[in-house]
Amino acid sequence: MVNSCQSCESCDKGFENHCPGMIFTYNRVDRDGTVTYGGYSSMVVVHERFMVRFPDAMPLDKGAPLLCAGITVYSPMKYHGLNAPGMHLGVLGLGGLGHVAVKFGKAFGMKVTVISSSPGKKQEALERLGADAFVVSKNADEMKAAMSTMDGIINTVSANIPMAPLFGLLKPNGKMVMVGLPEKPVEVPPFALVAKNKTLAGSFIGGMRDTQEMLDLAAKHGVTADIEVISAEYVNTAMERLAKADVRYRFVIDIGNTLDKAAAAAE
Amino acid sequence: MVNSCQSCESCDKGFENHCPGMIFTYNRVDRDGTVTYGGYSSMVVVHERFMVRFPDAMPLDKGAPLLCAGITVYSPMKYHGLNAPGMHLGVLGLGGLGHVAVKFGKAFGMKVTVISSSPGKKQEALERLGADAFVVSKNADEMKAAMSTMDGIINTVSANIPMAPLFGLLKPNGKMVMVGLPEKPVEVPPFALVAKNKTLAGSFIGGMRDTQEMLDLAAKHGVTADIEVISAEYVNTAMERLAKADVRYRFVIDIGNTLDKAAAAAE
Repeated sequence: MVNSCQSCESCDKGFENHCPGMIFTYNRVDRDGTVTYGGYSSMVVVHERFMVRFPDAMPLDKGAPLLCAGITVYSPMKYHGLNAPGMHLGVLGLGGLGHVAVKFGKAFGMKVTVISSSPGKKQEALERLGADAFVVSKNADEMKAAMSTMDGIINTVSANIPMAPLFGLLKPNGKMVMVGLPEKPVEVPPFALVAKNKTLAGSFIGGMRDTQEMLDLAAKHGVTADIEVISAEYVNTAMERLAKADVRYRFVIDIGNTLDKAAAAAE
Repeated sequence: MVNSCQSCESCDKGFENHCPGMIFTYNRVDRDGTVTYGGYSSMVVVHERFMVRFPDAMPLDKGAPLLCAGITVYSPMKYHGLNAPGMHLGVLGLGGLGHVAVKFGKAFGMKVTVISSSPGKKQEALERLGADAFVVSKNADEMKAAMSTMDGIINTVSANIPMAPLFGLLKPNGKMVMVGLPEKPVEVPPFALVAKNKTLAGSFIGGMRDTQEMLDLAAKHGVTADIEVISAEYVNTAMERLAKADVRYRFVIDIGNTLDKAAAAAE
């Protein structure tokens, strides 16, 4: 986001992301009537409230996706208290959001278990991303062994999947936070929540204060996104590859070296 | 409940109600092998941990249902922070649980709105129970006017009803707590939770510490259940009337004056 009303209850509480007047980074009309182009532009002017200080230790390219994927998982981890050493965090789905959630979980000193339907991601999760455990969601024995062990689950999956077994992984008072948007309604068996006071919550990016805090913490702990840097010309191919989930884990467009150069050449 | 393992993490945290070894008040086998009969018996022996002190100011008959309905609504209000003066509480459904939720909401100094599909309950809610407002859930205009105004909703309804409009009543970060058990899975539109960080939680009675706290607070503020006292002989008729929701709002069996007397006469 690049703007908000800056005067409502949500803005006052630091949740500009909940403001009814919130303006998205791109493809929206800002309060001054200009169209927002976000990162797909060579220059952006925003109110200082919507600037973050990029820590010196944070590389621009590997840090860029944190402003979406990073804050999206950091904000609910903080808000729901899933950020204390010794807690056990489940990360459902290992993609753009999931791989950053694993890294923040480890930065907070938590035990992190990746839950995935793809057994092939086990090595990646444990060896490259540093997760402590891996559970194949379709493997009944593995799911049973992990029952009632997790304080919380960050659910990054945008597909409609059976929820009851996932709630079974949570301890009493455990929390599942959805950060993806499945197309159809999620079906929640009431007993799965009621019997042990469990919670299903949703979360969407985060406020500006939390975003700065997230970047600072990421720089301190060396948390970055795994990326593939591309030129502006490659965007259409990148879109095709995104549709096939063929990227680990985020494309970053090098605007300075491609869009800016092309504009200069055209002059 | 009348017992638990008293040594697990849940018991240590004061949530005996989440203990895997929790023993229900009636129709269960206790740890010593005896069958539990709960209130349907002239005498009950339990471990002191599962005793509560009944406040002098609390009438036995009107206080008895608080040990189920009272703690069932009090526990999630406390746990989810829906207990501060000035907050706005929605109470969905006006029955045994709902009418007590209204009274606790007022005892906490909250604004309380009853949400019901029955327009006929309005007078009862406002005049007799002291609710501040009444919204007919099937009235689109009333629902629209109440949008984004509530900090939390205690959902006492056991039927499957559309959830999206109810989440619309919540402010950002608002919480809906289910204390009923609909038969079918609840359908939650992901966007309804994700866009403004809303929460759907479940809750089931409460721990012993909270139960004592609830009783003491109820006595202090004059919170009691609305009841109809019956004799043991009336139980079958009461069951028939319960099935028709024909009671405001709880039957209380006077064991001392009927079951005990009958037992004495038989000797």
